[in-house]
Amino acid sequence: MSVEHREPAGPTLADLGEDELLATIFPLLPGGPGVLLGPGDDTALLRTPHGSVLVTTDAMVRGRDWLDEWSTGADVGAKTVAQNLADIAAMGGVPSGLLVTLVADPRTSVAWVRDFTVGLARSAREADVAVLGGDLSSAPEGVLVVSVTALGDCEGRQPVCRSGAQAGDVLAVCGSLGHSATGLLLLQRGEIERAPELVDYHRRPRPPYEQGPVAARAGATAMLDISDGLGRDAGRLARASGVGIELDDLLLAGDVAPLHQVVGADDAWRAVVEGGEEHSLLACFPPLVGLPDGWRRIGQVVAGSGVRLRGEPVDGRGWDHFRG
Amino acid sequence: MSVEHREPAGPTLADLGEDELLATIFPLLPGGPGVLLGPGDDTALLRTPHGSVLVTTDAMVRGRDWLDEWSTGADVGAKTVAQNLADIAAMGGVPSGLLVTLVADPRTSVAWVRDFTVGLARSAREADVAVLGGDLSSAPEGVLVVSVTALGDCEGRQPVCRSGAQAGDVLAVCGSLGHSATGLLLLQRGEIERAPELVDYHRRPRPPYEQGPVAARAGATAMLDISDGLGRDAGRLARASGVGIELDDLLLAGDVAPLHQVVGADDAWRAVVEGGEEHSLLACFPPLVGLPDGWRRIGQVVAGSGVRLRGEPVDGRGWDHFRG
Repeated sequence: MSVEHREPAGPTLADLGEDELLATIFPLLPGGPGVLLGPGDDTALLRTPHGSVLVTTDAMVRGRDWLDEWSTGADVGAKTVAQNLADIAAMGGVPSGLLVTLVADPRTSVAWVRDFTVGLARSAREADVAVLGGDLSSAPEGVLVVSVTALGDCEGRQPVCRSGAQAGDVLAVCGSLGHSATGLLLLQRGEIERAPELVDYHRRPRPPYEQGPVAARAGATAMLDISDGLGRDAGRLARASGVGIELDDLLLAGDVAPLHQVVGADDAWRAVVEGGEEHSLLACFPPLVGLPDGWRRIGQVVAGSGVRLRGEPVDGRGWDHFRG
Repeated sequence: MSVEHREPAGPTLADLGEDELLATIFPLLPGGPGVLLGPGDDTALLRTPHGSVLVTTDAMVRGRDWLDEWSTGADVGAKTVAQNLADIAAMGGVPSGLLVTLVADPRTSVAWVRDFTVGLARSAREADVAVLGGDLSSAPEGVLVVSVTALGDCEGRQPVCRSGAQAGDVLAVCGSLGHSATGLLLLQRGEIERAPELVDYHRRPRPPYEQGPVAARAGATAMLDISDGLGRDAGRLARASGVGIELDDLLLAGDVAPLHQVVGADDAWRAVVEGGEEHSLLACFPPLVGLPDGWRRIGQVVAGSGVRLRGEPVDGRGWDHFRG
């Protein structure tokens, strides 16, 4: 078949942006009594005859989410696992299985697909998660899309949603901030050697999956993973919970300092506040609960709305798939 | 980011073909005790703490799986639901939820996405299945990929795998044969008016999902849905079961006759034997079990291997994603 196509006129996805598009789509989708948690959180939660299952999906697209000059097939395989398992962890869940879809130009080399599979399988094995199957489809010239679906289990606990934060809670993070964005900046500048470990994190993020259930057991009131930037994702949490969030610049300075050495102060702050693809866990804890080991305070949940840093709003800053 | 890319040299996916590519990938994937059924059947079956869940995924790509001239967004939405729910039905399962991924050029119109969502939601609602969530990603110019994951439940029964057929079983089908392929042929020839109902079936297949559990309860020994053609899919069933299959040309003549009127004898036979995207259910039943209502005999399971029609092998005929 040819790849010609025509499209209805009118506004495009770029005109709308991701959040408004989702707001258009969600009301059209059928729910049901089996949907314990529907669209809008890190994962859905579906009732099964004798329990429930967490389920989420994330896609990566060559030329948008990675460039072959900068990432091997194995890097892409590792990253797509990390994105999905971080979503399961962010509900307080334990991952149980993955499905993998590959949509590829038939001229794609078998070597790339093999390398991708090896990277994906290695990351799945490290997280003790099985690969259950998937789908193969061919695509027009140059197109390569990988899509992973992850399933998981809440181990009998309630899932930790985005919507449970309360004014007075402590905002805490587990894992790095700004490493992926700084690594990407070094790739863009051709300065890998300034901090190869940050470039490595950009290529193969290693979120602390096991800390999702730890946070849930410790009483986390809300949680998500940082996919699109601390500011934007904290904004989602604040909106879902009906609260405001104040990021603490003195506490974040500890994350900025080592990046400052590598890319300067402005880019380091931008990476920490706006950098996506980090997949670290961001959670709120009641004020009198001690943070679990490995978590550090970076701000405060307050009455109101939006996310602020030094009094300035930052919740709109970060990655939008369609506005780019 | 630019869309430039380089690739390792060596054989391509088109050189290998789909089956050989899968044979390369499968051994690399980690399994585990939770995997009750792994890659290679219509769905996987994953153990959950108190039961199990069926899970499958299928993608569609503009320019390969549909053309905008021939299919609306709503058609594509309906078809991607049908593909996935037919896989759940083919295990004898009942669908419980869907995830939807849209990977789209930001210049895609909001109207197309809305139309797609409406078609998908309508088909999901008709099958009493909830949409749980999904993912949005941007793509290079002209690219539009939709990918659906379906979950389902075996209602306490064993899943009906491809591997259970035994020599002596009756081969039966529920649903149409060759309608989608004949509809596509009419679109290609610009002769829609010769049989608009076949074109309609190509655009929005309506597999008899409810007959999957019916066949399971009736004792079906093996089952799959016809995605890539009767010959090719019967070949998969025969291979998985270690048996041969003889298609009965007298019995199939009933499926060919009405198509013969529309496109002539050769194309009608080709549509029935090689036509994909039909998503009707193909199952084997023990010889002394009566077929459930709605099922009709089309052949016989025999000792040996391969699929034959009038003594000629037909199991290689059908759709290969990468050889096209």
